[in-house]
Amino acid sequence: MTIEAEQFMQRAITLARKGLGRTAPNPAVGAVLVRNSDVVGEGFHPAAGQPHAEVFALRDAGDLACGADLYVTLEPCCHQGRTGPCTEALIEAGVSRVFVGTQDPNPQVAGKGVKRLREAGIEVVCEVLEEECCQLIAPFAKQVSSGLPYVVLKAAMTLDGQTATENGDSQWISCAASREIVHQLRNQVDGIMVGSGTIKTDDPRLTTRLSEGGRDPVRIVFDGRLETSPQATVFSQASEAGAIIVTATEHTEEALQPYRDAGVEIVQVERGDDGLDLSAALAELGKRDLHSILLEGGSVLGGAMIRAGLVDRVMIFIAPKLLGGVGLSLLAGEGAASISEACTLSNLCVRQVDTDILIEGEVQHVHRPD
Amino acid sequence: MTIEAEQFMQRAITLARKGLGRTAPNPAVGAVLVRNSDVVGEGFHPAAGQPHAEVFALRDAGDLACGADLYVTLEPCCHQGRTGPCTEALIEAGVSRVFVGTQDPNPQVAGKGVKRLREAGIEVVCEVLEEECCQLIAPFAKQVSSGLPYVVLKAAMTLDGQTATENGDSQWISCAASREIVHQLRNQVDGIMVGSGTIKTDDPRLTTRLSEGGRDPVRIVFDGRLETSPQATVFSQASEAGAIIVTATEHTEEALQPYRDAGVEIVQVERGDDGLDLSAALAELGKRDLHSILLEGGSVLGGAMIRAGLVDRVMIFIAPKLLGGVGLSLLAGEGAASISEACTLSNLCVRQVDTDILIEGEVQHVHRPD
Repeated sequence: MTIEAEQFMQRAITLARKGLGRTAPNPAVGAVLVRNSDVVGEGFHPAAGQPHAEVFALRDAGDLACGADLYVTLEPCCHQGRTGPCTEALIEAGVSRVFVGTQDPNPQVAGKGVKRLREAGIEVVCEVLEEECCQLIAPFAKQVSSGLPYVVLKAAMTLDGQTATENGDSQWISCAASREIVHQLRNQVDGIMVGSGTIKTDDPRLTTRLSEGGRDPVRIVFDGRLETSPQATVFSQASEAGAIIVTATEHTEEALQPYRDAGVEIVQVERGDDGLDLSAALAELGKRDLHSILLEGGSVLGGAMIRAGLVDRVMIFIAPKLLGGVGLSLLAGEGAASISEACTLSNLCVRQVDTDILIEGEVQHVHRPD
Repeated sequence: MTIEAEQFMQRAITLARKGLGRTAPNPAVGAVLVRNSDVVGEGFHPAAGQPHAEVFALRDAGDLACGADLYVTLEPCCHQGRTGPCTEALIEAGVSRVFVGTQDPNPQVAGKGVKRLREAGIEVVCEVLEEECCQLIAPFAKQVSSGLPYVVLKAAMTLDGQTATENGDSQWISCAASREIVHQLRNQVDGIMVGSGTIKTDDPRLTTRLSEGGRDPVRIVFDGRLETSPQATVFSQASEAGAIIVTATEHTEEALQPYRDAGVEIVQVERGDDGLDLSAALAELGKRDLHSILLEGGSVLGGAMIRAGLVDRVMIFIAPKLLGGVGLSLLAGEGAASISEACTLSNLCVRQVDTDILIEGEVQHVHRPD
């Protein structure tokens, strides 16, 4: 792959990211049209129901699209959805070459867009910055393959592995730059989920607070015992995004009414061996077009989600501090019986964020014998 | 500073490192003699009583030393010790310029070596790669300023902050490459210390096991209650290095005799508020020319050492694994009451070691009001 091709695809990825958290049930996609090494058109998919990235790029380029090269993060669609097929728009515009980041993860349509373009005589180059382009649509791919949301567990801890002191102090373990990254993440996910303990301890807002722009994710509280006050900030504050409480089927309408009155949507699932049936709960959230969810705590919900194999990615901010003693651990509940049975992470990425260290990785879902 | 000067000083640092763990009560020092950008002589201080690095470099260069430039990690000595003053040897050999890494940390001699050389008409350039050269002699500087050893706390934990599972499994949290680094460290420190719990749980050897070379550090067990078996591997195995047990003053000669019979040296200190009086214990170890000590566990001793402000550097190997549950924490005992009272690390260094991440930093000793 040429460096130039990767640079233009990188620009397409940057554009695509503007749509993160806004496009479900569609994936975030970016596109760039290039002539003689000059960008002549750019676009991204801003929201479901809106035109696709390719169409915005074609409009932006106008007559210059004819003979131009397209760089697009995801294989163009060739089927009629809420909008027309992008392949036909590209053929009609006279685009000469198409560079594709990654194939459509839906097995029923994968490769068909590329095939259609090639049949029309357009040269297609696949797998340009494929890993980055795959990462971009990981929530969409998870939804297509499983119906479940893509879950990112985020936490901040000290270098001795504590997320709070013995008496519960956790403000602020991480530095301001790390907290800014968390707000950027909140701006890019469909939902944010926490357990009832976190609401009780911190009464957090769980909103996106960036110096410019941003919108709130749907706030989801897991609370099998229905202990969270309907007046908790997470439910009562002003926000354009909704709030959901996930609880057990046993609760009566009467018990649920105060939440409905507060405008909170209710999702009820059975209890499993380890608290609520988390798979069933996540399937319900997936049906509501919540494809990417940030799991922000606490340790009980985090532990149960890891044990259930429902976490896809982990982001741990480590502050260069030692608290000492036994405060609050990252994950509570039953741990792995031996080191070899620990949940392992791959594709590790480590970087310094001001004074903190951010470690990210993908959870390896391995089959463990019963 | 020119890049060439830094390259030669880097070579001197590499040479100096060969003496780490072997030179107490002297510091590790390296020296390189250069003529027309060619190295004509090299040397390092191999052990107390042996000639200094400068003398080895002069011998190595022979007649070529005249008119050459010397790069030396530490200011040359100008006093008569077990060997003659290096300044006079350098003047006599006709060295033309001297590049010094860092000043002698002993306030009574600091700057005197440089002054003597300048008086003899030799050009002296100071502070070449000073930070690295200071790090090299950190144990010597600590000893000079406080009489205490320089203590490095080393631990391996999972990304959720566990050093073992609930049932005590800790083999192997870290990867083979991380364990190799630990053996290189053991080869470079004067002593290695652990608490009695670590001996009871793991019965470790605490020896240096490298594919080539290496020698064992003195093995030190902190055991106020005298619970460790005199037959424990750490005491009974064959090793050229000795073993020390640090215990309370209350124990009788009769109780201590089995350790003496096993060839173990005994250090007795009073009890303090938080177990043994660790400052007194470390002062005793400092008197025995143990200037650099690796603290390898366990969590009780580690916690007490951090609380007592006796740890200088921390090295945490993080394995990309999640154990879940509440296993063993890095540090036990009473923790900081709030995040703002946590012990903070500075000069952070983060690197990947095969699949692990190694985070190193210097402990900031801040005054905390009573």
